[in-house]
Amino acid sequence: MERIEHHACFGGWQEIYQHESTTLGCTMNVAVYLPPQAEKGRVPVLYWLSGLTCTEQNVITKSGVQRYASEHGIAIVAPDTSPRGEKVADNHLYDLGQGAGFYVNATQKPWAANYQMYDYVVQELPDLIEAHLPVTQERSISGHSMGGHGAMVIALRNPGRYRSVSAFSPIVAPTQVPWGQKAFESYLGSDRETWKQYGTLELIATAEERLPLLVDQGTRDEFLDKQLKPELLTQACEAAHHPLTLNMRTGYDHSYYFIASFIGEHLAHHAFALSQ
Amino acid sequence: MERIEHHACFGGWQEIYQHESTTLGCTMNVAVYLPPQAEKGRVPVLYWLSGLTCTEQNVITKSGVQRYASEHGIAIVAPDTSPRGEKVADNHLYDLGQGAGFYVNATQKPWAANYQMYDYVVQELPDLIEAHLPVTQERSISGHSMGGHGAMVIALRNPGRYRSVSAFSPIVAPTQVPWGQKAFESYLGSDRETWKQYGTLELIATAEERLPLLVDQGTRDEFLDKQLKPELLTQACEAAHHPLTLNMRTGYDHSYYFIASFIGEHLAHHAFALSQ
Repeated sequence: MERIEHHACFGGWQEIYQHESTTLGCTMNVAVYLPPQAEKGRVPVLYWLSGLTCTEQNVITKSGVQRYASEHGIAIVAPDTSPRGEKVADNHLYDLGQGAGFYVNATQKPWAANYQMYDYVVQELPDLIEAHLPVTQERSISGHSMGGHGAMVIALRNPGRYRSVSAFSPIVAPTQVPWGQKAFESYLGSDRETWKQYGTLELIATAEERLPLLVDQGTRDEFLDKQLKPELLTQACEAAHHPLTLNMRTGYDHSYYFIASFIGEHLAHHAFALSQ
Repeated sequence: MERIEHHACFGGWQEIYQHESTTLGCTMNVAVYLPPQAEKGRVPVLYWLSGLTCTEQNVITKSGVQRYASEHGIAIVAPDTSPRGEKVADNHLYDLGQGAGFYVNATQKPWAANYQMYDYVVQELPDLIEAHLPVTQERSISGHSMGGHGAMVIALRNPGRYRSVSAFSPIVAPTQVPWGQKAFESYLGSDRETWKQYGTLELIATAEERLPLLVDQGTRDEFLDKQLKPELLTQACEAAHHPLTLNMRTGYDHSYYFIASFIGEHLAHHAFALSQ
């Protein structure tokens, strides 16, 4: 890992690292915020997964998360949203290809060669972070939109690996909405049975561990009715008796202005879980 | 004024307005944050002037200022940094022309036709804001880098018009450093006497009103020695017995990671002055 950016921020350091990913077969950037507490000892980590079109930069420049991470002594690790580079398959649409990895392991050509974001986020990235930086193996995970989907799927599929999970404006039902169906058809193929391993609703129905879900959703989100459908998450959690706190936030949209307004509450949620 | 963006944010509204500026002879965008208190009555305003290459977007997407503006009940008004548009004179360099107005009234061709940012910020913009939005005539002013220069010059030249002034990483001596000399030569011409009306140091020497200056400056700022020179501000304030709080922040650079870390303290400073 080579450090390519290093900025003092809220008493700690906002950094960008670059590394060759064996899982993804390309060079990746990852944003790391190290709070001041990391100078004296190891700190737990909150992984943040961003949404469509984003890179590792969005959450660190727009959410103000560092203030809360500094207060609670939590590192923030924010990977890019897909493999990157000229040799990596891409598409002219914003919701497929680079910037739209959907946190799955692709099985279809041309995507399978590089689009292994699930394994990257679950295994390679934490291994790298925990080997090279002053962090513990206590992990939480959160994300926005496509990244909220990724955070919930990854937490649900890996019981015991994350202390807590939360999401902003998540795509809760990728197997049922246009964004998810388009991506899964391309990355996973037409056999919809294979999609279920990446569907939050399907995973909740069979979850071994009842890790509480914290979800914030704006009521004026421009993607609410067509792509996000939080009511489906409520139904799935009720049916499976899975604990859910769904905060519907009146007037808020899909932007980082929404995330910035409530990310302090999410950090408090993760800090509490990480301190137990 | 036409509202072109409207996002819920920290209980208030982050908005962008577009208007035809008679002072600048072009269409301008201006960012306005209205805190929740503005729904029940008029609130005071902090004007924020951004630095080179910035637009009205930078401070509202990167500083996290809305959190503090919401707590204190202060509106934030952030104009663009120069006139804009295809018909407005420009230059291929980042530090001259569009994005680099330096908050002066240009007298030289081709700039004089549109580059009247001093009058725009001091007069036209507040008139417009105070006529159309739920704000009082209680004003404070702050800014970053070129905008820190602008904020101090404007406050010093208009006694009684601003309750308080502050700056991050300001260009304190534009008449003595490359950024300022290049801009002033182009906008104001070669007669250096005319530059003094836009020089913070020169204005401090003759100021009628001793409005305290609050300045934050990072010690690892990449422009510190060549362009910013805060020691000259200290000397000028000592010579004139002008009150100055200069916070040198160890390890911080010129970025918004620095601004985000300390803008809460600046908002508290302005809130106190605006409440007197």
